[in-house]
Amino acid sequence: MSPKITTELLKQLRQVMKSPKYVQEPVQAYIVPSGDAHQSEYIAPCDCRRAFISGFDGSAGTAIVTEQHAAMWTDGRYFLQAAHQMDNNWTLMKMGLKDTPTQEDWLVSVLPEGSKVGVDPFIIPADQWKRMSKALRSAGHDLVPVKENLIDTIWTDCPQRPCKPLITLDLSYTGVSWRDKIVALRSKMAERKVLWFVVTALDEVAWLFNLRGSDVEYNPVFFAYAVIGMNTIRLFIDGDRMMDPAVREHLQLDSTLEPEFKIQVMPYGSILSELQAVGAGLSPKEKVWLSDKASYALTEAIPKAYRYLTPYTPICIAKAVKNSSETEGMRRAHIKDAVALCELFNWLEKEVVPKGTVTEIIAADKAEEFRSQQKDFVELSFATISSTGPNGAIIHYKPVPETNRTLSVNEIYLLDSGAQYKDGTTDVTRTMHFGTPSDYEKECFTYVLKGHIAVSAAIFPNGTKGHLLDSFARSALWDCGLDYLHGTGHGVGSFLNVHEGPCGISYKTFADEPLEAGMIVSDEPGYYEDGSFGIRIENVVLVIPAETKYNFKNRGSLTFEPLTLVPIQMKMIDVNLLTQKECNWVNDYHQKCREVIGAELERQGRHEALQWLIRETEPLVRV
Amino acid sequence: MSPKITTELLKQLRQVMKSPKYVQEPVQAYIVPSGDAHQSEYIAPCDCRRAFISGFDGSAGTAIVTEQHAAMWTDGRYFLQAAHQMDNNWTLMKMGLKDTPTQEDWLVSVLPEGSKVGVDPFIIPADQWKRMSKALRSAGHDLVPVKENLIDTIWTDCPQRPCKPLITLDLSYTGVSWRDKIVALRSKMAERKVLWFVVTALDEVAWLFNLRGSDVEYNPVFFAYAVIGMNTIRLFIDGDRMMDPAVREHLQLDSTLEPEFKIQVMPYGSILSELQAVGAGLSPKEKVWLSDKASYALTEAIPKAYRYLTPYTPICIAKAVKNSSETEGMRRAHIKDAVALCELFNWLEKEVVPKGTVTEIIAADKAEEFRSQQKDFVELSFATISSTGPNGAIIHYKPVPETNRTLSVNEIYLLDSGAQYKDGTTDVTRTMHFGTPSDYEKECFTYVLKGHIAVSAAIFPNGTKGHLLDSFARSALWDCGLDYLHGTGHGVGSFLNVHEGPCGISYKTFADEPLEAGMIVSDEPGYYEDGSFGIRIENVVLVIPAETKYNFKNRGSLTFEPLTLVPIQMKMIDVNLLTQKECNWVNDYHQKCREVIGAELERQGRHEALQWLIRETEPLVRV
Repeated sequence: MSPKITTELLKQLRQVMKSPKYVQEPVQAYIVPSGDAHQSEYIAPCDCRRAFISGFDGSAGTAIVTEQHAAMWTDGRYFLQAAHQMDNNWTLMKMGLKDTPTQEDWLVSVLPEGSKVGVDPFIIPADQWKRMSKALRSAGHDLVPVKENLIDTIWTDCPQRPCKPLITLDLSYTGVSWRDKIVALRSKMAERKVLWFVVTALDEVAWLFNLRGSDVEYNPVFFAYAVIGMNTIRLFIDGDRMMDPAVREHLQLDSTLEPEFKIQVMPYGSILSELQAVGAGLSPKEKVWLSDKASYALTEAIPKAYRYLTPYTPICIAKAVKNSSETEGMRRAHIKDAVALCELFNWLEKEVVPKGTVTEIIAADKAEEFRSQQKDFVELSFATISSTGPNGAIIHYKPVPETNRTLSVNEIYLLDSGAQYKDGTTDVTRTMHFGTPSDYEKECFTYVLKGHIAVSAAIFPNGTKGHLLDSFARSALWDCGLDYLHGTGHGVGSFLNVHEGPCGISYKTFADEPLEAGMIVSDEPGYYEDGSFGIRIENVVLVIPAETKYNFKNRGSLTFEPLTLVPIQMKMIDVNLLTQKECNWVNDYHQKCREVIGAELERQGRHEALQWLIRETEPLVRV
Repeated sequence: MSPKITTELLKQLRQVMKSPKYVQEPVQAYIVPSGDAHQSEYIAPCDCRRAFISGFDGSAGTAIVTEQHAAMWTDGRYFLQAAHQMDNNWTLMKMGLKDTPTQEDWLVSVLPEGSKVGVDPFIIPADQWKRMSKALRSAGHDLVPVKENLIDTIWTDCPQRPCKPLITLDLSYTGVSWRDKIVALRSKMAERKVLWFVVTALDEVAWLFNLRGSDVEYNPVFFAYAVIGMNTIRLFIDGDRMMDPAVREHLQLDSTLEPEFKIQVMPYGSILSELQAVGAGLSPKEKVWLSDKASYALTEAIPKAYRYLTPYTPICIAKAVKNSSETEGMRRAHIKDAVALCELFNWLEKEVVPKGTVTEIIAADKAEEFRSQQKDFVELSFATISSTGPNGAIIHYKPVPETNRTLSVNEIYLLDSGAQYKDGTTDVTRTMHFGTPSDYEKECFTYVLKGHIAVSAAIFPNGTKGHLLDSFARSALWDCGLDYLHGTGHGVGSFLNVHEGPCGISYKTFADEPLEAGMIVSDEPGYYEDGSFGIRIENVVLVIPAETKYNFKNRGSLTFEPLTLVPIQMKMIDVNLLTQKECNWVNDYHQKCREVIGAELERQGRHEALQWLIRETEPLVRV
């Protein structure tokens, strides 16, 4: 990787920062956040403005350019990558280190008195705007919205915003029609006494209308907003995709409907003016519900007194609780995914051990090939993490030609991968050794496994938040002085984003919503030794009711059921470190893998992979 | 308990709410919070204004009186008590229940347009003022500070503010002189670039000056404020206690000192005007450090731009990490406390079983009597919770004649008690049966014990916050569908408040400070069955470094060492529910009790109690 030369680009940006064509008054600094107008985690190429101006293309980072300086804030995952990708016009601000200033503090230290700091109001979330604006104001500066994105003005070969065809999902996939979802949403709105709800997150629009798209890689979403009133539905979306007869039929655009279910289709770009019109027409006590992470531009469209902001929207919460159709779809998707992985691991054992010709990239491609053979496969759900030896210790590693290592019988191999099927989203990590693991590698693997089981088998009261389970995953590692520096789990969408709120299992959050039956999260503790290996064991698990001996205050209890059914490599387990209960858990899990995935391998005529599965699911025995 | 008749009092209060003698403009509502001007948990009789106006004397509650209504907000611990103590002038607002309005929402619903809501600015913490003021303002009302406390104007027989003599603590108790504490504080102030620090919490004043008092029952504190500058020390305190030669000597009031260690003693009541003078004399960039829980009155004395507010003050954090003199003192205090409890339990077994004449109150008094025989005993550290049978299920129970039950061989007895010794503060809970416990009682006790051990034996990385350990205490209960509705532990002072911040072990907090070696917390899981029994096992434990096999990122690990050394009743344990590791923990713990407390019982010539201790510390054997 050689750094991007940005001298000319920065010069151009600094010119437009002063140009009356784009700014009312010159801005002395311009902020370029990651992210798009929907606060998406994964973004389309046209929204990679921070990567364009700096060269740094990691998933998290904020660039700030002043007349004299250019600085990039990013976190520990990306210190090395950012340093390699940026030229010396840029200063790297290592977030999380003691001496690294916050963006606000740095701005205050470098700006001349009474400066204006510009930012695109569509890209910055309202809560961030508020915090930054307050800090700057208290130091005598002003945060100002710059309507035209200044990066776009200098990005001559900026790709077009994608506008791909839509997929309609019928009731067999979604379980609930979009009409019924609108009815449920309106009842939540009535409960909170709000008249309007603004849908800004792409996966929330997709879920609400039972539509999917492919505008953003790995996430089956499409660029759109929606504004739901008590009697109106407005969908803001571009392109001729609304001309597709299947979509028109699905949304009943040409049917005679009760007016409150008639969808008005409007141009994507008209959201702001339409919302401003809504805001201007409100009477006292009429409220508009928005996520507190919606963009500053849309939030400002509603006068402050009329805003009702919450960290999680009712759609986000409803979407997280999967109904039986969605759950069954997720089960099917995970069975197909396990078939693909059994094929892959069987193939790897045949190729790696004798030949030694499989690289991380070849293994990742092979995994995709096997997945793509499965019914209703759409695409991967994230960039495959295929990593061997020291690369496994880089938690968000993605193999590229410069780093690509060959799998061998001497190193641990970690594969974290998943796919989008029309019936569900998968995300699974297995860690394997194709030769003989060392005692230390087995010891660490077994602690990680104990943590995985501690979460998966945990029983906890209804109403428990996921963050309260995080320490269970670490306890065995902690006992030996080990740990891992990431959360234990995230919510998983149903043929939607592989990361979704409002639940998860992490010590870092506190404001997660309580777990409830039907939610789906990942369980993925790990252990990473810099420069030598990485271990992670990840299943996607479904929250289900638990049977317990007693039932305190009639609250009821919950536990998890693994949806992922892929063998955990027994060669890596030091069985003497497991309790009998843990040993039984592994054997029960493998028994289920053998039964469920075995039947599907049989059905698909994949006999060699079936033999592999049977070998890999023999019962463990404690000595 | 018959309710207090408040008709006349409320009439008087409503009169002064309109009287130009006390309010610039009439107030349509008046808020009477719990608490004093120092945001103390325990308060002096003269500060029990909410109890005076309503009759409800629980530890938590806020009264609001309007022209038409009188309402009391309190939490689940006090629903019954409040209902009994208040007459029908009052509406009970049950906090935590779904349909209970917040104080703000209720005010907005009952007040006429454009109302003024009064509150004593010395009693309301600044952060609460901010929240409430904002909510009221957005509904068109105003929160206004009423300088004279309106309850005091009608409380004709209000007790005097206590002003008891002080106790000086020398280095053998405190380990660090007050001069060195001031030096350390000033260095923290310099780090944060603040020029002044305002000490508002009573335990922080006491700790800083190595003084103790007895103005508030159970808490060895005294009414005072302090303002520390880089070159000045001002102590605001009343009474002739500053005339005490021991105190004058301790504070070196009559010595020739460097000016920056010269303490200026000022009247308690002059804090506001002095602080206003400080505030008025500040230049730009000169900051004053206050707790964000300091009163609105004191916070407002400093212009907003000059305030530096933090949730935990540097004194609070320094105070929590005990030095070796404090730790040794705490060890001594816990040994003496264990001697008293061995005497008590031996006495109870002799009295309860054959005679059946011991009531909860008699047992509590006997515990105090044994404690008071120990060296340096000062007072109890909280009201003894002496409860048998169904009373044990009332978590904050205190026996009174109306509820006083007789201990018997048929019921579980729960004793949660502690004392202030000059060398340390104790807090211990033991749950015992004087007859034969049922299998179910033993089962529940054993789950609680497993939770107690899971926390006490936990190993966790340096930097871990206590709330991340809370679930360990619940896991065994959760597995069977059981739980308890309180946190697992709180910080404990060193001859100071039995509850102190900034650390603890509770699912309810997130903003606790990380645990570090030298901190002292309680470990007290429980299980409560309404109407039948309560179980709690509580030790005070010291955070100590842990030896581990590995040391990830050189972070180091921590664990707990029990300071409390009182046998856990083996009769209540179902040993077959314990793992071998848990069984070993109990045996090691009892071995230590026998050695350490046995030696002290021997030294004090308490032979009968020694025999009891030896019987109670026989090793458990798993079948």
